[in-house]
Amino acid sequence: MSTVSESIRNGVDTDRMFATLDLIKEQPELARFQFRASNRWIEGAHNRSTIKGFYAAGGEDTSRDEAFALDAGEPAILLGTDTGANPAEYLLHALAACLTTTIVYVAAARKVKLTSVESTLTGDMDVRGALGVSDEVRNGFERIGVAFRVSGEAPEEKLREVVERAKARSAVYDIITNGVPVALEVTAG
Amino acid sequence: MSTVSESIRNGVDTDRMFATLDLIKEQPELARFQFRASNRWIEGAHNRSTIKGFYAAGGEDTSRDEAFALDAGEPAILLGTDTGANPAEYLLHALAACLTTTIVYVAAARKVKLTSVESTLTGDMDVRGALGVSDEVRNGFERIGVAFRVSGEAPEEKLREVVERAKARSAVYDIITNGVPVALEVTAG
Repeated sequence: MSTVSESIRNGVDTDRMFATLDLIKEQPELARFQFRASNRWIEGAHNRSTIKGFYAAGGEDTSRDEAFALDAGEPAILLGTDTGANPAEYLLHALAACLTTTIVYVAAARKVKLTSVESTLTGDMDVRGALGVSDEVRNGFERIGVAFRVSGEAPEEKLREVVERAKARSAVYDIITNGVPVALEVTAG
Repeated sequence: MSTVSESIRNGVDTDRMFATLDLIKEQPELARFQFRASNRWIEGAHNRSTIKGFYAAGGEDTSRDEAFALDAGEPAILLGTDTGANPAEYLLHALAACLTTTIVYVAAARKVKLTSVESTLTGDMDVRGALGVSDEVRNGFERIGVAFRVSGEAPEEKLREVVERAKARSAVYDIITNGVPVALEVTAG
């Protein structure tokens, strides 16, 4: 029991974490992952993604018994009926979740026990772009603000280092700050 | 009744849509929106965002009675317990949802009645970046693939034009392909 509890920090099994890192260092081809989502339009601003399978570590991962279903929508002012958070809000959630999990994993690896991690995110947008009213403004957020409040059993400086390292390693932070090429194909008829 | 049913196309009230567009053309300051998410770490890879209020059209929008709660997680191979889709998958959902809603709104504006809009998205990642094993690969997706299948009461060429216009106006497509500056603040202790 004491071995198990020492290995698990912040809810992360650090023995398994370091074993995974060692394995990937030895066999880099195992690091190829592909995540997926399937989306279907329902009505108006209501559509739903289902997320289940993914490719990881040299094969198709089949560990999930059920798919996650995510409903998107828009509020009334954007002509929807609030069937779910809107796509831009989902993007803020993706960023918050990725930074938070990366903070928790980095802290676990560095033997920092966290007590709380909270964040508030804001995304500013001039909707004239997305609504097609103006070509002078961009369609997406002009800027995103992220405010973290992190506490744990470590000096403030150590906690700040954990957040800095997480920012330098977060997948979604990289995607949103640097962009990713998107190839879009259409079958119509 | 016939006026109402003519105004609503693809579940979108086009009279309201055009009235909104006219209003924003006249008063561009009403186009300033701010979306938000608040996130709290729960345990390991499990964290939850709550999404409710936002700023829109010159004031705080209070039309939502309840917050949306979104749970993130990681599958076992990434040291989680599948408490929700992972952050990178949420990002794919945000992209799918935004492109789909934009297609539906553009079609409504152009008098195209859609019968179905489906998409599958893939994101390829070498996890050595996010896991901190290699500085040679990026943390996020190297590329994202989006495959749409769109059908409706219009010629194939018209449906393709609708998708092209949606791609040119989607907020999340812009964010993900072009990137957005993110300002991150930390309060630690």
